[in-house]
Amino acid sequence: MKIDKKVSAAVIQRLPRYYRYLGDLLDNDIARISSKELSVRMGITASQIRQDLNNFGSFGQQGYGYNVATLYEEIGRILGLDRSYALILIGAGNFGQALAGYPYFAKRGYNFVALFDNDPEIIGKTVGGVMVMDVAQLPVYLQENHADIAVLTVPGHIAGQIAGALENSNIKGIWNFSGSDLHLRGGIIVENVRLTDSLMTLSYMINEDDILQRAMPM
Amino acid sequence: MKIDKKVSAAVIQRLPRYYRYLGDLLDNDIARISSKELSVRMGITASQIRQDLNNFGSFGQQGYGYNVATLYEEIGRILGLDRSYALILIGAGNFGQALAGYPYFAKRGYNFVALFDNDPEIIGKTVGGVMVMDVAQLPVYLQENHADIAVLTVPGHIAGQIAGALENSNIKGIWNFSGSDLHLRGGIIVENVRLTDSLMTLSYMINEDDILQRAMPM
Repeated sequence: MKIDKKVSAAVIQRLPRYYRYLGDLLDNDIARISSKELSVRMGITASQIRQDLNNFGSFGQQGYGYNVATLYEEIGRILGLDRSYALILIGAGNFGQALAGYPYFAKRGYNFVALFDNDPEIIGKTVGGVMVMDVAQLPVYLQENHADIAVLTVPGHIAGQIAGALENSNIKGIWNFSGSDLHLRGGIIVENVRLTDSLMTLSYMINEDDILQRAMPM
Repeated sequence: MKIDKKVSAAVIQRLPRYYRYLGDLLDNDIARISSKELSVRMGITASQIRQDLNNFGSFGQQGYGYNVATLYEEIGRILGLDRSYALILIGAGNFGQALAGYPYFAKRGYNFVALFDNDPEIIGKTVGGVMVMDVAQLPVYLQENHADIAVLTVPGHIAGQIAGALENSNIKGIWNFSGSDLHLRGGIIVENVRLTDSLMTLSYMINEDDILQRAMPM
């Protein structure tokens, strides 16, 4: 079956969560689960779960529920986890090194194949078995090697310069931690991670009662 | 005006984005903007913007639009950025050090006042001017000092142990990078950051056409 419509961003963002919860169920030897039970655990409605999954085919059976192992595997496939990905990372400071050295990624098929930085003290260092190269070599590297995803862990004001080299490559996606919006020529998908936004959300929540009390029409 | 209803999570998550866009406008010396123009820049509808902001009072004027500086300041206040926060961080590995050493946080009033780790090679190290303490000292530290937010950058299987010490403290929020769901006794707000979910979303997007083509009713 060819499905023409694209799936909404909200659904896509919930997929890793399903995957995580199903993985936990498997770890706890739970072989099947009703959409009702799954909904209670995940804190979303059963009908939302059914709707979300219906985007990708028909899962589960009336009166039986979901086979956990099958659904886990299927969602993994939907997420593209049955493949492996070659990742390059640009910006091998503390944060970049933490990502490149995180063993879970390799377990899921995300392999860091090259790391770049502009700091002479970092260039030549080995992180997770991969040596950090001079970022000046990035354009040539991209011409001569295959990579699927570029992880951008450089400061925002440098991101624009790097983007040019990535546009002229076969990179399909950018995992962007730079805090800067990237304006790229079509085709490359950008996933922005904005840690500061998340921290600000937390400080709002901490103060919510107080903030709403102070809120006044101006 | 006392507003009783809580604001939806989706609205709250958009606030830092408004703040960021308005800050960029200010940097570019743009003094006022219509909700239409702002909506084009941000890629959300003008009516959504008006609805979001209406949660907190009445901003902008028919025919004039928004005063950028005023709205920026007001949203900053809503986000609680007119205060400062004492942050402690547990897990001062590469990732924790990257967060604790990031100067932007202090500029926004998020001050790391204490760092903890269990690794003898990390304990005693100074990051962003703060010395890393032994995590065994955490409960005593929390009894004797004030902290608003705990940043959890420990592996998931350790998060549960730390949570106990935090529950018995005056901590108001946890910025949780551990990948583990925290089940805390009431009151403490947890903001989870799941980097792996974000990477999985990116790999889905890269493969979307292909995935939808393969999707079959089972």
